[in-house]
This record gives sequence, C-alpha cells and structure tokens, in this order.
Amino acid sequence: MKPINVGLLGIGTVGGGTFTVLKRNEEEITRRAGRPIRITTVADKNLELARSVAGEGVKLTDDAFSVVTDPEIDIVVELIGGYGVARELVMKAIENGKHVVTANKALLAVHGNEIFAAAQKKGVMVAFEAAVAGGIPIIKALREGLSANRIQWLAGIINGTTNFILSEMRDKGLPFAEVLKEAQALGYAEADPTFDIEGVDAAHKATLMASIAFGVPVQFDKTYVEGITKLEAADIKYAEQLGYRIKLLGIARRREQGIELRVHPTLIPAKRLIANVEGAMNAVLVQGDAVGATLYYGKGAGAEPTASAVIADLVDVTRLHTADPEHRVPHLAFQPDQISELPVLPIDEVETSYYLRLHVEDKPGVLADVTRILADQSISIDAMLQREPEEGEAQTDIIILTHLTIEKNMNAAIAKIESLDAVTGKVVRLRLENL
Amino acid sequence: MKPINVGLLGIGTVGGGTFTVLKRNEEEITRRAGRPIRITTVADKNLELARSVAGEGVKLTDDAFSVVTDPEIDIVVELIGGYGVARELVMKAIENGKHVVTANKALLAVHGNEIFAAAQKKGVMVAFEAAVAGGIPIIKALREGLSANRIQWLAGIINGTTNFILSEMRDKGLPFAEVLKEAQALGYAEADPTFDIEGVDAAHKATLMASIAFGVPVQFDKTYVEGITKLEAADIKYAEQLGYRIKLLGIARRREQGIELRVHPTLIPAKRLIANVEGAMNAVLVQGDAVGATLYYGKGAGAEPTASAVIADLVDVTRLHTADPEHRVPHLAFQPDQISELPVLPIDEVETSYYLRLHVEDKPGVLADVTRILADQSISIDAMLQREPEEGEAQTDIIILTHLTIEKNMNAAIAKIESLDAVTGKVVRLRLENL
Repeated sequence: MKPINVGLLGIGTVGGGTFTVLKRNEEEITRRAGRPIRITTVADKNLELARSVAGEGVKLTDDAFSVVTDPEIDIVVELIGGYGVARELVMKAIENGKHVVTANKALLAVHGNEIFAAAQKKGVMVAFEAAVAGGIPIIKALREGLSANRIQWLAGIINGTTNFILSEMRDKGLPFAEVLKEAQALGYAEADPTFDIEGVDAAHKATLMASIAFGVPVQFDKTYVEGITKLEAADIKYAEQLGYRIKLLGIARRREQGIELRVHPTLIPAKRLIANVEGAMNAVLVQGDAVGATLYYGKGAGAEPTASAVIADLVDVTRLHTADPEHRVPHLAFQPDQISELPVLPIDEVETSYYLRLHVEDKPGVLADVTRILADQSISIDAMLQREPEEGEAQTDIIILTHLTIEKNMNAAIAKIESLDAVTGKVVRLRLENL
Repeated sequence: MKPINVGLLGIGTVGGGTFTVLKRNEEEITRRAGRPIRITTVADKNLELARSVAGEGVKLTDDAFSVVTDPEIDIVVELIGGYGVARELVMKAIENGKHVVTANKALLAVHGNEIFAAAQKKGVMVAFEAAVAGGIPIIKALREGLSANRIQWLAGIINGTTNFILSEMRDKGLPFAEVLKEAQALGYAEADPTFDIEGVDAAHKATLMASIAFGVPVQFDKTYVEGITKLEAADIKYAEQLGYRIKLLGIARRREQGIELRVHPTLIPAKRLIANVEGAMNAVLVQGDAVGATLYYGKGAGAEPTASAVIADLVDVTRLHTADPEHRVPHLAFQPDQISELPVLPIDEVETSYYLRLHVEDKPGVLADVTRILADQSISIDAMLQREPEEGEAQTDIIILTHLTIEKNMNAAIAKIESLDAVTGKVVRLRLENL
C-alpha cells in the first residue's frame, strides 16, 4: 500500500526519538498500521543537525511553512513547542487539510479550542497523546477506554522533574534549592526550570485531561497553579510521620456546581500505589463511576517514550485519515456540539482536606484557641501532632490534619490563627487528598 | 441520529451491570458516541430475571439464536461464557453480519483464530476489551496505545481471586485451603474455583495479550499453566524475608527463538509497584522498546468494571461500524496477513530465575554438594538463606535464589539435588522474575 507521508517540524530530542523509533520498528509498525509511515520531510533551523539525524533520502528545509503547505505531505508532526510559530504552523497545516500530531501541551492548553474548532471545520485530526504523560497512553484511556464512565475525578503525577525533586527531598532530607541543582546536573531539570517547578507544565497537562474527562472547553487561564518552590523539607518529614507523602498533583474533579482544576503540592496516603511513584516517573489515577479507580504509570518524558506516543498517534491517524470524520474519536472525547458549560470553580470554592503547620509558643491555651477557630469555621480535625520542644526551646510546631472543608473557610481560619499572639509567623498550609 | 441496536445474550452479573451503566450514563455516553446505544433485545433462559433487570420496552427471548439473526440488531453482546453455545452464537452472529462484543476469554483463547478469521472475512468487528483485566483498558493500550513499540514482555496480575488469596496468605500467614474458604465466603472465589486457582483463567487472558503484543495466533494449548494450590505459607514468608512477594503472574516474553507464554506463582521484588497490587485488584506491566515499562491497574472483575469495558467496545464499534474495514484496528493488533509464525517455546526452554527450598539434614558438606550440582549446570546463585535449626532439630531449610537459567537445566539440577542423601523430600521450586 502507498506509504503515508509525514512532515516533521523540529528535530530536537523528541523529533530525533521519533525518527529512531520509526526506523528501528519500521517492520513492526507497518505490520500494525497496514501501510508504511515515512517521514519524508524535516524542517529545522539547524539543517546540519537535521541532516545528521535524518540521514539520506529525507528532504530537509529550514522553512517549516513550506512543509505545512506541501501537497505531498499527509500528516504534520509539530515538535517545535511554545505558543508562537508553532501555533501559526498548526493553524496553517489545518487550513491546508493536513492532519496534525503534536506533543505541544502549552499550545493546546492555551489555544486548543481555536485549534480543535478549525480542525473540526476542515475535517482533519489533531492528535496529542504525546502532550500528556509522555509514553503513557492516558489520552486514549480517558477518551476511549473509559467512555462508558462518568469520570468523577483524576489526579496525576504529570511532571517528572518535580517528582524527581520531591523524591530526592524525601529520600535525602535535603532542601528544595539543593535538590534542584542536583536535578539540573543530572539532566532531570532544565537550565530554566520555571515551567516545571512552578507547576505550569503540570497545569497544561491537567487542563487537557480535564477537558477530555468532563467534556468542557480547554481553560488553562482558570486552572489554579502552585509549584513546589516554597515546599520545606520539614513538611515532607512531618507528612511522612503522619503516613503521607507529598506529590505535585494535577487534580480535576467534577462537583455539582462546577469543576475543580488545580495543580499544587498535595499530601496523599503513603500506602496508595500512586504515592509510591518515585523519581521522574509519571502516573495518573482516574476515578470513573463504573470502573472505579484505574491507574496508568510510565515514563512521562524522554526521547523514545514521547516518540512512542507520537507514533501511536501517527498509526491512528494513518488508519483513519480517509475515513469520514464521524468515524473518528472527537478531539475532546465528546462530540463538538456536546461540550458542557460546567464552569471551572475558583480556588476559593475548592473542597479538600488540609495539612497545617503552626509555629507556636509552648504555653497553655494555644491549642484551645486554634481548635476553637477551626470549629467556628466548621472545620473538623482528623489528626494532630505536636513536636516535643527541645530542651530550653520556648517554641514548637503543631501539625494539624483536617477533614474536608471549602478553601475560603480555611483561609478565614488561617487569618484568625495567624492573628493569635502565641502563633509566630505564617501558617504553612498544604492541601491533602485521600484519593 | 439513529440509535444503534444492541442484542444482549446473557443477563448475569456483567449483563446486569452493562444494563445499569448504559442507562445511568446514557446522556454522557451518547455525547461521546454521537448517537444513542440501546439494548433493544435480551436473550436469557431466565425470562423472569431478564424482565426484572431490563424493565419495560426491551424485547425478551429465551432463544438467543433469534437475536443473532435479527435484522434489526447491529451489535451482539455475548455474555454467556464458555466454549459451547457461546461459540455457535458468536459464529452465527458473524455469519449474519453482526459485530460482536464479548467478555468471553475462554472462547477467544481457545477458538479465537477461527472466530477472528470469520469476522475478517465478513467485514465485522469482534471486540473483547472486557475479556482481559475487567475495566482496565489493557487491550486498547497494547493494541493501539503502544503500537510504536516492539513489545519485549508483559507480566500481569490478571486473576483477582488468586491475588486476593495470595494477599491474605501473606497478611495473615494462613495456609491456602483456609484462605480459599474465606474467599468463597466473601464472594471472591466461586463455589468451583478450579479455573481461577489452577491458573486457567489467567492463562486464557495471558494467551490473548501475547497474541496482541507479538502478533502471533492465539495458542492456549501451548500456554504453560501452574496454579497456586500447592503454594505453602512457608515460602511466602521466606520470600518476604528475602525482599520478594509471590504473585500469580501471566507472563509473555519474546525471545529470539520464540515466545515464552506461562502462568505460575512468581517471586517479584517487593519494591516494584506491581508487587504492591493487593486484594482482588489487577495490574499489567508491559515493557516496550521505546516506551520502557508502563503499568495499568484497576478492578479486574465485577459487574460495573467489566461493563465499563463492554460499553467502551460498544462505543468503538458504534463509531466504526459503517467504516471500511481498513479503517479499523485489526483484531490481533497486526494486519491479518502479517501474523507471525514465531513459535511458543515449551516450558523446558523458558529462561528465568528460581527460588529453591531444600529440606536438609543439618550437617557439614550438604551445601557444598548442592552448590556443586548447581555450578555443574552453570546455574549461579544470587542469594542464600539458611534457617537456624530449632534446639535439638536435626533438619533445616535452605533457601536459594538463582540467576537466570534455562528451565531444563534447573530440572536436571533439582533431580540431582533430590538424590542427595542429606536432602529430604522434594525440592520446592518457584520461578522468580526481577521485572
């Protein structure tokens, strides 16, 4: 059968991996797809690099726009990243009737609605398995595998850099800044790690998963984002003592009033499988009303794991590229005219449990005041831990775990607790999910 | 859009669950599928039960053959089970141009080649996500999500009954027979648990996964099957002391000479995520050359988890039922003319590590004899544990963990070890996989 022609935009880590895997497993992939999948053209500013990766027989260009308009190209693989030229190229490719495969979570989380609408109108597919959790087929699982379910919530470790840092902080008892340096030296964190450590990357991925799980538009601007840069080693240790681990989770939960969509460091019970996902690995836990909890685990980044997802999309698109659009899976799992208007709730309205650390003077009555304030906000206490003060020390830490409450009630309680004379400095507040 | 009409054969646990979930999530499922999916006819010998589950507005019959020939029916869901009438009905449904969704692992593991060939010829789909690991979308992951990969091996906890029993044996230190009774009382094991505890059910599922992973015909008759009935509490305890847990695994591994396909109790390192899958839960670990290791975890049985898989298949088939067959995913992941002839290796040729327990007289020279025998078979020792004999006890246990070897070499070594005067009774031999 006639090969399918792929134009590859960007020959960096994932582009190189895609090349390598397509070539190494050419026979196996063709046996599955029913026809050869060939990268015929590569566009990259660095033509020398492109030549060294692509070898002979592949057309090279530094003009990516010539690829997305090339009538010989069936599918465009966008691996440039970012919201700028990548957006223009994807829109241009769609306009020219090309199917698009992309790993660009930032682009889709921010401009996905526009891109999917254009693709829908033109009758082409935009596939993005590689945009979330690298090689784990989580988009396919959510969009197709769990299609019988009303998805209730999902929670994912979807950023390998931060999970590596948190694992190291716990294992070695080291502070954030030190572990970050180690992660950079080992190649687990980039020179500018802002998007990872501030939670932005995880928020892009959580945004996409929420849309597919609940059938709502992509709304990155409404996603609550809190990174791990302020996390202290002391809290990781206290959490451990109470039977919890701290993970940066992307959480999406459906409630009657709307959807919670948030990324933040989260205490989770240490005995849960997902709490034991260590190092740079990713995992997503999904709760459906029929299936119950399912978990998907694997490498969330890297050349070949991400290429695995890119190529799986290429096989899917190859299979369906001449099929009627009605035979295809909708971009956001739900038919385009069936997208829900359920709003994303502001963080004030989120319902969760909390971990509080108070630095207090070691004298009678403090605990009575604190617990009274929590009770006044209808916040009930699940567990408490008071550190034995050192010899001669006048102050100590009190750790409180609460049951479920609404975030604004917790904010009100914390403001009152911080105004107590016996409480020094700010209250450390972390969210806790029992999953 | 015109609803798709489904005929349901068998209204037991999974049939009831399918009914319940399709009804409860009707709106959500239609929003995904693009058209309503309706069970219009139910066939069951027990018409009264069928009436009570299906309610009004659904046609009932005790003649399943009238359903598979009914021109109004688009998709037949076969939930009768077994190889007998279920086979006739599935073949008849295909003959009549119906698509089939089934949870029947036994039928497909034994008669899959014939069934898939007939379906291929007739241009219809036979979908079977529900046949393996209940609600976990593992068939979809293997067949589509990992299509870029040369799958190297997979190992799965794919029988909830035996995993429940093994978890309880370890937790409570109880013998197999006692825990089996408890499992039966709790509904985790059937009155006749043979298929589960002897590993047959797991072997059916491993057979299907191997075919999809490697593109080989379904070959249940060549699958090595060993259950958990002979497993002793002592070995679970020794394994634990050495840092391992014992799980009933379904293993499929590709080697140059052929495919290993085997179900048996297996020691795996306790720190692996899959070693911590407890109770009736299922999990499958898959190693692909590009993606590395991925894990899929969830409920492997039960009315609604299995229904989740049945309905996901219904949505897939609904989407593609009028598409050209070339637009569909091949039944065994690889195109029908691309199925490989790589043979299934006999158990003698399997390469694995071993756990050995020897009951020996506590006197000098025994260990020298045993280690000499292993060395003569080129079997190297990874770890050893000798139980301190009780006061006045003349005999003790020696536990040996070996590195990789070929099973026939191990058999030869064991025969020689058992012939030593100082060794009493049979050597307990379990396989060990480091995963």
